[in-house]
Amino acid sequence: MNTQRNLADLVREAPLGDFIRTRDLIRDDIIRAPLLPYLGAEGRIRLQAECLQPLGSFKIRAATSALQQLDSTLLARGVATASAGNFAQGLALAARRRGVALTVHVPDSAARMKVDNLRALGAQVVEHTFADWWQIMSTRETGAADGTFIHPVCEPAVILGNGTIGLELAESWPELDTVVVPFGGGGLATGIALALRALSRKVRIIACEVATSTPLTAAFAAGKPTRVERHPSFVDGVGSNSVLEEMWPLLRELIDQVIVVELAEAERAVRDLALRHHIVAEGAGALALAAALSPQCQGSHVAAIISGGNIDASKLCPILETHS
Amino acid sequence: MNTQRNLADLVREAPLGDFIRTRDLIRDDIIRAPLLPYLGAEGRIRLQAECLQPLGSFKIRAATSALQQLDSTLLARGVATASAGNFAQGLALAARRRGVALTVHVPDSAARMKVDNLRALGAQVVEHTFADWWQIMSTRETGAADGTFIHPVCEPAVILGNGTIGLELAESWPELDTVVVPFGGGGLATGIALALRALSRKVRIIACEVATSTPLTAAFAAGKPTRVERHPSFVDGVGSNSVLEEMWPLLRELIDQVIVVELAEAERAVRDLALRHHIVAEGAGALALAAALSPQCQGSHVAAIISGGNIDASKLCPILETHS
Repeated sequence: MNTQRNLADLVREAPLGDFIRTRDLIRDDIIRAPLLPYLGAEGRIRLQAECLQPLGSFKIRAATSALQQLDSTLLARGVATASAGNFAQGLALAARRRGVALTVHVPDSAARMKVDNLRALGAQVVEHTFADWWQIMSTRETGAADGTFIHPVCEPAVILGNGTIGLELAESWPELDTVVVPFGGGGLATGIALALRALSRKVRIIACEVATSTPLTAAFAAGKPTRVERHPSFVDGVGSNSVLEEMWPLLRELIDQVIVVELAEAERAVRDLALRHHIVAEGAGALALAAALSPQCQGSHVAAIISGGNIDASKLCPILETHS
Repeated sequence: MNTQRNLADLVREAPLGDFIRTRDLIRDDIIRAPLLPYLGAEGRIRLQAECLQPLGSFKIRAATSALQQLDSTLLARGVATASAGNFAQGLALAARRRGVALTVHVPDSAARMKVDNLRALGAQVVEHTFADWWQIMSTRETGAADGTFIHPVCEPAVILGNGTIGLELAESWPELDTVVVPFGGGGLATGIALALRALSRKVRIIACEVATSTPLTAAFAAGKPTRVERHPSFVDGVGSNSVLEEMWPLLRELIDQVIVVELAEAERAVRDLALRHHIVAEGAGALALAAALSPQCQGSHVAAIISGGNIDASKLCPILETHS
């Protein structure tokens, strides 16, 4: 497989063979996540429970894919990334399993617990000021000889890994006509979209964002990436100040619609998932269910991607104990 | 399939064909529950997440199996059961899907919410004093012309339905050598044991009970069903005053070992399942993980059956917010 392929090529080619090979490459590191029937909506909504993946997020797919697509010479020199979140955790787990040295560059604002978890998984963690860290994210230059840099979003291997979800959805549910995906950087939505396109499946791709941070809505409105405010909330796994320039051409082409979810709807979805469907979703993970229940999805056969489950009890419990 | 087969015949014959047919009969009503790798214990423990089944419990398997094995003449006359718990809920869902009339006999002590849920699922609910209700459970005589009576535990079709979990475990995990099962009435443990025996798989069957109610431990100690105290706790899905006489011959033959779990261990397991593995388990559902982590399972390849997830936020959250 050509690991040098760039993002534009990936979109143009929509290479089914690469998605299938990727699925085989990552099989031993992930679970086949269940597609759970949602109680209500006449059986039209199903929940792709990626929160059940090892370390609680779909990112293990992308992280494993990125490692598996490097040859042994490159792996022996180690790999590096810039992320403090679920992608780095997944990469750390996949790297440890393979005995690959990993350096993770994080902003010094990263949560202590996440940094500790990375170290516990054997990664070397380097802290930077936010500006320096953002520079690494943008240029992929870490300033150290720490091996192949793997970008957490704008990386063909990452998008191929995420796209394996699309293969599973297509196989599990012939009637599927809509997929709702939480929008972080766009790697998840575009990966699933490309895999479904590679299979020649006509499926509407809806990205959802939380009302406190709507860079994708802004980009579609302006016709280009645009700076927006980001307000902190319990939905901390998505949202940014802007769509990444590098991702915009893919997003514009592959995403059919954006749904903005209010915080109260996201909270109701977290509660519904935990108490009626028995899965723990973080705020970002619950957005897709909230969007799937909106009028825009009425009458459709919708898979909602429950992307992750990493939420503290101190955030989860006040939501569960609210009666709505 | 011979629906008149009694329990003793079922044990003697260990009919693989019937388990396989049952699996096919219930396929559309259940999910293929994921066998999740437990984080820790060097990958030796896996979690059979039955809490993700529709209505949050493995009981949908047994309930659907019981209905599917009646012919259309019998179904047209309706069915009845005596249970207020997950079995009746599952039967109500399966009956509604098939347009079958269901009467559920419950003790007047049954939780209001459970009775309301049953009615919402279309069941007719008849309340009795506890003594009268127990009489129905023991004699299978409801005193009304409400169709075929389906016992929630001592019923070949129920045990066949539960046994489908054994087929899935055997298929998913060749190294499996131990299954840990929460002990309620014994239908789950014996079903899984019989299916594995039918497959000629040598697997140790461990039943677990909570320290506040240990009828199985008492029965093994005395060599026969024996009356014990039952103290209420958050683990409300298992425990009774005695093993059922009718089940004892199966239990004695099929269960290799009993592990008693302390309440604090059960709480730790609930927390671990929710916050690290992102599944919501009720107390009974978490017992199997607690037991799988005990010294008796050291070195084994253990599937822990996470049997159900129906727990109120008011019970769940104090457990999640405790730091251990």
